[in-house]
Amino acid sequence: MLEQFRQILEADLKKFYNELHLKSEQLNQPIAHILSLGGKRMRPLMAMISNQMFNGKLDDVLPAALAIEVFHNFTLVHDDIMDNAPLRRGKATVHEKWNNSVAILSGDAMMIKAYQFFEKMNPTHFVKIFPLFNQTALEVCEGQQLDMDFENKSKIHPNDYIEMIKLKTAVLLGCSMQIGAITANANNADAKRMYEFGLNLGIAFQLDDDILDVYAESEVFGKQVGGDILANKKTLLLLSLMEKVNETDNVLLQQLLSNNFAEGTDKVKEVTALYNKYFIREEATAVKNQYYQIALNQIKDLSIDAGHKKMLQSFAESIVNRTY
Amino acid sequence: MLEQFRQILEADLKKFYNELHLKSEQLNQPIAHILSLGGKRMRPLMAMISNQMFNGKLDDVLPAALAIEVFHNFTLVHDDIMDNAPLRRGKATVHEKWNNSVAILSGDAMMIKAYQFFEKMNPTHFVKIFPLFNQTALEVCEGQQLDMDFENKSKIHPNDYIEMIKLKTAVLLGCSMQIGAITANANNADAKRMYEFGLNLGIAFQLDDDILDVYAESEVFGKQVGGDILANKKTLLLLSLMEKVNETDNVLLQQLLSNNFAEGTDKVKEVTALYNKYFIREEATAVKNQYYQIALNQIKDLSIDAGHKKMLQSFAESIVNRTY
Repeated sequence: MLEQFRQILEADLKKFYNELHLKSEQLNQPIAHILSLGGKRMRPLMAMISNQMFNGKLDDVLPAALAIEVFHNFTLVHDDIMDNAPLRRGKATVHEKWNNSVAILSGDAMMIKAYQFFEKMNPTHFVKIFPLFNQTALEVCEGQQLDMDFENKSKIHPNDYIEMIKLKTAVLLGCSMQIGAITANANNADAKRMYEFGLNLGIAFQLDDDILDVYAESEVFGKQVGGDILANKKTLLLLSLMEKVNETDNVLLQQLLSNNFAEGTDKVKEVTALYNKYFIREEATAVKNQYYQIALNQIKDLSIDAGHKKMLQSFAESIVNRTY
Repeated sequence: MLEQFRQILEADLKKFYNELHLKSEQLNQPIAHILSLGGKRMRPLMAMISNQMFNGKLDDVLPAALAIEVFHNFTLVHDDIMDNAPLRRGKATVHEKWNNSVAILSGDAMMIKAYQFFEKMNPTHFVKIFPLFNQTALEVCEGQQLDMDFENKSKIHPNDYIEMIKLKTAVLLGCSMQIGAITANANNADAKRMYEFGLNLGIAFQLDDDILDVYAESEVFGKQVGGDILANKKTLLLLSLMEKVNETDNVLLQQLLSNNFAEGTDKVKEVTALYNKYFIREEATAVKNQYYQIALNQIKDLSIDAGHKKMLQSFAESIVNRTY
């Protein structure tokens, strides 16, 4: 099923970015560039899956699924400017290939284009989806700002990190699942459960990503192992370590974080050794599993048939227990 | 009437930006900053006036009027980054007072907040307004991109300049007028006429602004006289001059544009002298008056009473024939 959905989605996305016809190629090309880089298309697929769990019509969810993917890619374009990222999926980012102004403006245009997809929706669905999407989109901005705020803060509680990734990443997954349910005319309780399913799965997914960033063993991961450590990214792992280290190890940790160490020191190896010493991986995995479990718990009470429940479970499993 | 509308609007805007409650002050403060700088509030006032011309209820247009003003201010925040502008209405721009990332993200949040206002609208009005607003918002982005594209183009036809200001500035005035009419349940033909009224008035307004940038005589203008000349801004005046200059004057003009001239040369004075020699002011004024006339022509066929027609005329007059 997933493969078929993916094909439908890719075809529609391709049609979209090949037929933008905006009045400057400096808008058409960057939008086509970012959307053609691929990716898992996790969010729109979640909307489609959720729609199918309630025996909805795919045509009813597709405009919203496309809106979500275009919106998500808009956030990538703007985030890449803010993060000064040269690469995305191994290709030049929009601000790198063109410039910051082009990246700002083509991102803006993508956000409006995302809203434009909703014009094609069944109005009964749209009135429910519009406030949900607006609220979610705002929260994604808030999450990104909190993430940037964290860079300049010395003391961050691990719970604040969870709140940040909830906003920056997880709410859009929740929103995707709820939108799928709405477009299949699910009842409000079920639609809300799908939101909670996506939200908690999203938190577990991000924590899994943070763990894999340190502990992935294969090149299938797609990102440089240890990238977060090299960038001093304040993930749950680093924040937990900061809470736990003894004084001696803290001196070492601070040296590593300030890049104030002898030449030849392997920063990734040294920080990972500290993670191991304090069982940080196990702790983060336990937190991840808590959220994963909350997600799974949502499935039980859904008024959908047993076969569909099983499908949701294995989908959740595939998202969170990646093995690289 | 205008003064009363302005007070209602300012009070609502103030309430909005004082009660944002976004989860980072790096979002709340920049949004409050840009919205508190004031300005003519031309766009939302146009929506309110248009609504009143058809005897509509102000409450029906207000959410859309606020959406339009917040959207407009979002474009200012992002445009100021792209234009590297340090000041806006005499105060620091958002990217200057904070930084580019904060300006990008608080702009994004403003755009979503603009959409959120529509949730409060009468659904019958909203289904008509939503596609109009989306299309207009996209066109504003296209206009800004064309404006930037022009900077790197040597040959631009004056008509291309008109097309650019139509998109960058005028369509949002047209949209504001049409939205006002829609919220007062005007018929489609009248709503479309109000769009054309606002659109053509908007073009005339921008041309007037370009002329005043060179020929304003008083400090009431609010901007530095000659600012466009100093920045080599390709306005209708400069493009018309480029089409008309003889070879000798063209050598002088190119020297002035490349800032390759003897110390002590007054660039503004010299370029203005060329404008005068070739009657560029008169030509631009004639073009401006053409669009102004098209705007006025829309009023005749409106199915509104004579008193309201007179009010629209004098409103148009006040927009276009500013004397400084």
